[in-house]
Amino acid sequence: MILCDKKRMEDKIVTFSKFGDAGHGGITRYSLSPEAHQARDEYVKRMKAIGAVIETDDMANMYATLAGSEPNAKRIVMASHVDSVRNGGNYDGVLGVLTAMEVLETIVTEKVPHKHPLTAMIWTNEEGSLYPPAMMSSGVVCHDFLPAEIAKKFVKENMLASKSVLDKVSTFGEALEKSPYKGDIKNRLNADKYMAMFELHIEQGPILEDAGKELGVVTCVLGMFNYRVRFFGQSDHAGTTPMHKRQDALFAAAKALCFLHEEIDKLGRPELVYTTGEILCHPNVHTVIPDMVDFSIDVRHEDPALRQKVLDIVKSLDGKTIEKCRCEVEMMWTRDTVYFNKELVDFVRTSADELGLSNQNINSGAGHDAQFASYMLPTTMIFVPSKDGHSHCEPEFTSVEQCTAGASVMLNAVLKADKK
Amino acid sequence: MILCDKKRMEDKIVTFSKFGDAGHGGITRYSLSPEAHQARDEYVKRMKAIGAVIETDDMANMYATLAGSEPNAKRIVMASHVDSVRNGGNYDGVLGVLTAMEVLETIVTEKVPHKHPLTAMIWTNEEGSLYPPAMMSSGVVCHDFLPAEIAKKFVKENMLASKSVLDKVSTFGEALEKSPYKGDIKNRLNADKYMAMFELHIEQGPILEDAGKELGVVTCVLGMFNYRVRFFGQSDHAGTTPMHKRQDALFAAAKALCFLHEEIDKLGRPELVYTTGEILCHPNVHTVIPDMVDFSIDVRHEDPALRQKVLDIVKSLDGKTIEKCRCEVEMMWTRDTVYFNKELVDFVRTSADELGLSNQNINSGAGHDAQFASYMLPTTMIFVPSKDGHSHCEPEFTSVEQCTAGASVMLNAVLKADKK
Repeated sequence: MILCDKKRMEDKIVTFSKFGDAGHGGITRYSLSPEAHQARDEYVKRMKAIGAVIETDDMANMYATLAGSEPNAKRIVMASHVDSVRNGGNYDGVLGVLTAMEVLETIVTEKVPHKHPLTAMIWTNEEGSLYPPAMMSSGVVCHDFLPAEIAKKFVKENMLASKSVLDKVSTFGEALEKSPYKGDIKNRLNADKYMAMFELHIEQGPILEDAGKELGVVTCVLGMFNYRVRFFGQSDHAGTTPMHKRQDALFAAAKALCFLHEEIDKLGRPELVYTTGEILCHPNVHTVIPDMVDFSIDVRHEDPALRQKVLDIVKSLDGKTIEKCRCEVEMMWTRDTVYFNKELVDFVRTSADELGLSNQNINSGAGHDAQFASYMLPTTMIFVPSKDGHSHCEPEFTSVEQCTAGASVMLNAVLKADKK
Repeated sequence: MILCDKKRMEDKIVTFSKFGDAGHGGITRYSLSPEAHQARDEYVKRMKAIGAVIETDDMANMYATLAGSEPNAKRIVMASHVDSVRNGGNYDGVLGVLTAMEVLETIVTEKVPHKHPLTAMIWTNEEGSLYPPAMMSSGVVCHDFLPAEIAKKFVKENMLASKSVLDKVSTFGEALEKSPYKGDIKNRLNADKYMAMFELHIEQGPILEDAGKELGVVTCVLGMFNYRVRFFGQSDHAGTTPMHKRQDALFAAAKALCFLHEEIDKLGRPELVYTTGEILCHPNVHTVIPDMVDFSIDVRHEDPALRQKVLDIVKSLDGKTIEKCRCEVEMMWTRDTVYFNKELVDFVRTSADELGLSNQNINSGAGHDAQFASYMLPTTMIFVPSKDGHSHCEPEFTSVEQCTAGASVMLNAVLKADKK
């Protein structure tokens, strides 16, 4: 078995952690920011040093490719992103790019023969931190095929902490125009030129760590639905309105939230996850009874039948009256479970087994670029453990050993795909 | 009994409703705005027409005074405010000024003899809509005696709807400097020159209407406390964090809110009012488990022993852990019940009885300038009914008959005080 190099891996992790260093262990590296461009410059420098050819497409996605022994063979791509959330960690996204680079570096250093051209790729704006939505470029390239002009419509979110040249732009399209890495639409990932995609990512949850596993063989991205639950009451003065006359939309919402937890938990499925992360209250003044409260409910599970059972519970509130407040339930979006390519999944599992790494099947509760890529190409993902399950925060951590082991699995899985 | 004039009252209500007319039944008339100055100009015009002398103080409070037969007698003042909340109604505050004017107009027209000088007064910035806090001027003048310079420290709230000259000022002090009605500190309401204060106001609740009463004899402003209840959890990814590992601060807060309602309702005191009007959730993103939720709890009742029982329930959460989230309870402010002057309260009740108006004792759940004034002078209030209990909104309504009846009660109560 060929192995990736821990020292070289560590050097990359340390070096890239400086681009957007927030000063207390994590980074803020918005897509297309100066900090993200520093990371891209470093990627270009290192990939050119091993003889890779750099291409960029119209979404500023970047492709560093090593030629293979069969010039007409399709490429195998390893991809992730270098942008982060605000005050994020040093592993989410960038680790997938660093392991892709490490795989290419190992192949060149160890003179590993391969038929197919191999590409280490950077997806632009996976987080969508400044310019929603998340997974924007993989969506545009692999999923909804939006014309490039649509990029101008992605309007910047109000991020108070942003203190950079991006302050002067208001859309993703403007930031893209300023990027030295905006390239040609003909270079986009496509099914004619590419054969398969791998993405290594941190788990962002505690499952592997709790199970004592070194690696996760990702089989799918969970199907989900995202709904809003809204209550309409009557605003009145907190000091002058007797309790029995009130229509308090916040109290109604609190009762509904407790009802949802109770009913969903009755299904007895511990692997189901559901979350109310956002709540809006109007007018949200301490002396006024709220007349409108609106909260999100995000539900994820592989099985559509179970998702439907949960949805029935959520929808049972629609049109109901709680505390004299009328309830409305509205769908925001749903997505089916996206299953990864079985053959590629097997390559990952077999490689991990051959390397003697403890591993287990796992699904991805989070969305990733690989999910959109799988609409276009055979695709799969590899997870490495997240310390304490933390992600999207500065304590995010995966050890160099775990990162290098993940890179070695990717290397060997790619070489198995290369044999096809 | 001398009665106020319905036609003249109606003319005032209609005329003043134009100053800040929002176009659909209500008004937006921020303190010291051009619209509020139009209302003050009209007040000056009408008060000068009946021979009243206009004075203004350093907070731009305005005083229109009719001389009495005893030149050295202390003044009796009738006061309220002409500023409104955003998209407020045509009665909150301004009706107290219009009835004060109506009382003086009736006294002049009907040549009613009186010993004491009688003053119709406008308090500046009762609502605190643009410049918190509410009841700013009565606080400064009667309660905490802040120096005028402190006014510069009252910073303007961000009110998106404000489209006026006030857009160019950022503090109350700046707006005050621009006002033609900023006067001399020596003209402030004070106990040497004034004997008593009356304030007529709409009830802002449904109690009088539900009881079929024409008038409320206000005996006190309810004591209250305002606390914050905060839960601290752990932010994690909505898709990757198993339910049993979560510390969901919003679910904890929803449970706590239901607990508070349940426990407080067990006290079985229907006249108690308590409200959670404000809730803050961090980071408030639909895909992230909330790590901090903070809500207000506002509790009002006349009896300090009952307030203490409720406070014990609220405080029982302090330091507790709900859904693995630690709870903190923090006091924002408390105020004792403010009882109005018994003699003045009797004058109001007797006047209403003599006029044949159905009436009842009522307390004020809302704060009013009269509450601060009562720290300085014998003070009381008169309530007229609010249709459907609505206030601080455009449907706010009290009929001309009810307004005129209220003015007549104030007139006769003032004349009783004048006999002292």
